[in-house]
Amino acid sequence: MRVSKLLGKTQREIPAEADTISHQLLLRTGMISQVAAGVYSYLPLAWRSLKKIENIVRDEMNKAGGQEITMPVLSPIELWQKSGRDRTMNILFTLNDRREHTLVLGPTHEEVVTELVAHHVQSYRDLPLLVYQIQVKFRDELRPRAGLIRPREFLMKDLYSFDVDETGVEISYQKMLHAYEDICKRCGLKAILVEADSGAIGGKFSHEFILPAESGEDTIISCPKCGYAANAEKAVFNKGAAKNDKPQHIEEIATPGMKTIEELTAFLKIPASQTLKAVFYVADGKFIFVVIRGDLPVNEIKLTNALHCQDLRLATDAEVIEQGIVAGSASPVGFKGVMVVADDSVSSGTNFVAGGNKPDTHIKNVNYPRDFKADIVTDIALAQAGDTCAKCGTKFVAVRGIEVGHIFVLGTLYSSKLGANFIDAAGVSHPILMGCYGFGVSRLLAAAIEQHHDDKGIIWPVPIAPYHVYLCPLYREGTKVDETVEKLYADLQAEGIEVLFDDRQESPGVKFNDADLLGIPLRVTVSPRTLEKESAEVKWRSEKEAKLIPLKDLVTMLKQLLPGKMGV
Amino acid sequence: MRVSKLLGKTQREIPAEADTISHQLLLRTGMISQVAAGVYSYLPLAWRSLKKIENIVRDEMNKAGGQEITMPVLSPIELWQKSGRDRTMNILFTLNDRREHTLVLGPTHEEVVTELVAHHVQSYRDLPLLVYQIQVKFRDELRPRAGLIRPREFLMKDLYSFDVDETGVEISYQKMLHAYEDICKRCGLKAILVEADSGAIGGKFSHEFILPAESGEDTIISCPKCGYAANAEKAVFNKGAAKNDKPQHIEEIATPGMKTIEELTAFLKIPASQTLKAVFYVADGKFIFVVIRGDLPVNEIKLTNALHCQDLRLATDAEVIEQGIVAGSASPVGFKGVMVVADDSVSSGTNFVAGGNKPDTHIKNVNYPRDFKADIVTDIALAQAGDTCAKCGTKFVAVRGIEVGHIFVLGTLYSSKLGANFIDAAGVSHPILMGCYGFGVSRLLAAAIEQHHDDKGIIWPVPIAPYHVYLCPLYREGTKVDETVEKLYADLQAEGIEVLFDDRQESPGVKFNDADLLGIPLRVTVSPRTLEKESAEVKWRSEKEAKLIPLKDLVTMLKQLLPGKMGV
Repeated sequence: MRVSKLLGKTQREIPAEADTISHQLLLRTGMISQVAAGVYSYLPLAWRSLKKIENIVRDEMNKAGGQEITMPVLSPIELWQKSGRDRTMNILFTLNDRREHTLVLGPTHEEVVTELVAHHVQSYRDLPLLVYQIQVKFRDELRPRAGLIRPREFLMKDLYSFDVDETGVEISYQKMLHAYEDICKRCGLKAILVEADSGAIGGKFSHEFILPAESGEDTIISCPKCGYAANAEKAVFNKGAAKNDKPQHIEEIATPGMKTIEELTAFLKIPASQTLKAVFYVADGKFIFVVIRGDLPVNEIKLTNALHCQDLRLATDAEVIEQGIVAGSASPVGFKGVMVVADDSVSSGTNFVAGGNKPDTHIKNVNYPRDFKADIVTDIALAQAGDTCAKCGTKFVAVRGIEVGHIFVLGTLYSSKLGANFIDAAGVSHPILMGCYGFGVSRLLAAAIEQHHDDKGIIWPVPIAPYHVYLCPLYREGTKVDETVEKLYADLQAEGIEVLFDDRQESPGVKFNDADLLGIPLRVTVSPRTLEKESAEVKWRSEKEAKLIPLKDLVTMLKQLLPGKMGV
Repeated sequence: MRVSKLLGKTQREIPAEADTISHQLLLRTGMISQVAAGVYSYLPLAWRSLKKIENIVRDEMNKAGGQEITMPVLSPIELWQKSGRDRTMNILFTLNDRREHTLVLGPTHEEVVTELVAHHVQSYRDLPLLVYQIQVKFRDELRPRAGLIRPREFLMKDLYSFDVDETGVEISYQKMLHAYEDICKRCGLKAILVEADSGAIGGKFSHEFILPAESGEDTIISCPKCGYAANAEKAVFNKGAAKNDKPQHIEEIATPGMKTIEELTAFLKIPASQTLKAVFYVADGKFIFVVIRGDLPVNEIKLTNALHCQDLRLATDAEVIEQGIVAGSASPVGFKGVMVVADDSVSSGTNFVAGGNKPDTHIKNVNYPRDFKADIVTDIALAQAGDTCAKCGTKFVAVRGIEVGHIFVLGTLYSSKLGANFIDAAGVSHPILMGCYGFGVSRLLAAAIEQHHDDKGIIWPVPIAPYHVYLCPLYREGTKVDETVEKLYADLQAEGIEVLFDDRQESPGVKFNDADLLGIPLRVTVSPRTLEKESAEVKWRSEKEAKLIPLKDLVTMLKQLLPGKMGV
């Protein structure tokens, strides 16, 4: 491809609306163009990289025995009413057609695929079955952001597995787990596998594939010793024991002006783990009184799951006051009329200091369950770096990352609601056991940039680079450069090497800057000076040093450096 | 692929909801599955054929110099307001997002691509430019029908050309015209190129690619001598002269009970071409009085274009009476207060018989424009088989067909409204000249079946068949058949031949019926009887006779018969 003819111009300026590196670079390289908030066109360079990712994903799905299909974007709301997700997925885009039938724009396809399978699968002999698609998806995000990381329209691979028993499910799950590892590896990307929360998809257990990148919105907690890794939202950890003395009599203490755990512990000279903290939420409109040990943050995902609620938010000051709560001195001790959820850390020790439910007052020697009761006691604490591993006791480390894949065991969650059953060898009907396996194709493009860039631009891993070689002639006019590069362009393409040919009449500075910005793996420069030595200068984008290579050896050498024609 | 594992079962019964052969066969073969009215899932066999069509289309677009991109499904209504199509395209699906912004689900992408090009193209040096995508489209059809022929969600290729001048436009147009011819040829399909109406896309002139098929909803009028061919909606023809005597004095005649042209001409013993017929429409809510020579039908597309209206329908009896019109005896002679549109045939003769505007009365010797005036006089007649060619005078023939491609010269229709300009060599700004070129990828799948089937099922052209070979073992159990076909299955696949392996324990009748229904080009049968002769039976789906081929030659022979690995 000649740069002069390519749709999509590079730009120097950092676009004001771009909030992450990948978003900035995708816009600056002319790879994407915004059509609406969170809605983008993919221009030719992005299209090529996406196609390469898609082809790798497809190949791995086929190797695992997946059958490719395409389900439609549109589906009737009645399907989503059967699963209940018309109410629980608050990112659904819906529309009414001319007959006032409501249609959903698919954010995922559990309902549609389950109905399809209910129609086409009858017998255990039809199972196991793996079907997948690579298709555009839609989410009406509250805050679309970060370009292709969290857009409203995006490209995704979703595979669904159908099995007769748990053993089958396990086999399907493992196949996908390995396929995802291979996809990331083949794309030239580093990924980590972590335990994850099942979220709105539901189901029994799940894993995420995370590309470590500083800008990632997920925090991964991992144990450097035993290898345990989980999304912070999901991670379980050893909360340690607080002081475990004999329970003492409850006793009021004056704490003038002490409203935070920090102030309180400094004043009383006790560790935060010897206090109980009150935090107030509203879950689906209902006020919730949360109590947790003073040294631990609340994990809102775990809390949402514990409450089985859809919408969870912190209560406003006004809502807190309305409940008769004295902010800064609240505790469930003697407090009535609201739902109380306690983290299991409340029973990790004795004689805690908690709020006195009146101004400038706390109480000491609070013991659970002697002094207060909770409606729910469970793990609702957020794991952090420095917490210790529940399995081996080692201190956790934390990394930021971007989720590119998410796999779930669904069990019979959808098959039972949508009537997807099979008849076993004895003639008995059972709901089919399902799994679902999502992979963010367009998100991977952005995540790859987050992982592979420097201050000059993108550094594409070879397998997903839009082109292999950036052919860069300098000072063409009136020199032999022109003829040499035109021949080189033809020769390289004839060998299946994908070449982006910067045929523009621009200065070396402009061309080198664009080459660095676009991040094509190999830059081949031909100038009057290299031609004096009958050579071209070859430089990896990822390295500092360039090498002079004799023109006669160039095509052969580039073929050796590159994995040959991968195609788009 | 093993039939036992394939998602999508064949069915004997003809589905009640399917109104055309392709719709019936796509459902019966388990290639598609309905999700909502006019919305389908593509199952693995359909997916493979679609992918082959898509690859042929892509290859031809690339050869023509097209750059592939993907524009989003969603676009803001504001873009459509700029072009005015928010009002004129009544098949737009729209939705409101959570912030009450209205988004359109793209039925085509002129607006989006024009804005994209406005952003990325500045200079004549950036042109010509051909960009395309292969993507899902949406139309909120009044009556979705015929499966993949007129659905609400479908797969389409749309290319847009951008040029600096008319010469450039002509070159781009010709490139696409030839690419479309090559696509149809490479898919193994017969297509005809016809002049067409520009419809809602607008623009200067256009051609359609039609696959002749009896069930087609388009009628193509063509001249067997000079080769002129056009959609009946567009075709111009020689209306012939009516009697051209000297105009006589107008005269009332009693025509008791004569309400139709047939009754009138039989009674008066004159040809229909000597009469004028009145037909009543409502265009965008406005009553229209149409007058046309008695032997010609009204062409509603030409009438719509003449009126520049969006919505045209026949007036109801009540609406006709309300205008004070005497049905069966109406004419524009002496009639006032409504808009009159006349076909240019009203001036093709003299002394016509027309309605008298009172019951049981006509008038003779009506002459235009002496006796009545029309607000518009233009060609609004529908061409039919038997009409004569305007170019060479030969009688037209008519064929039914399905439109699979439609190409348009748009001129500056969109570029001027959306600000897509270029600066010429002299530094002057001009709107870019555009063309658009649509090709129905999923519709082609159905149209191919309409053109290639018999009463037993589909007869796939090899290039777009989901598989090449239907491998059909009979009486496997306890015979050598099993081992032979398993080896054959592996050997054929190793040679890149795509095999659908009917590994089921079914009777020869069931298997042969399914083989015929599915329409895979070559059926290879292995049974104890063929093995006695160390042979397999090979049969083209399109032929009656089978041949015994020695097993040792089979793979080589099949490789020769087939065009090798075409891939999906």
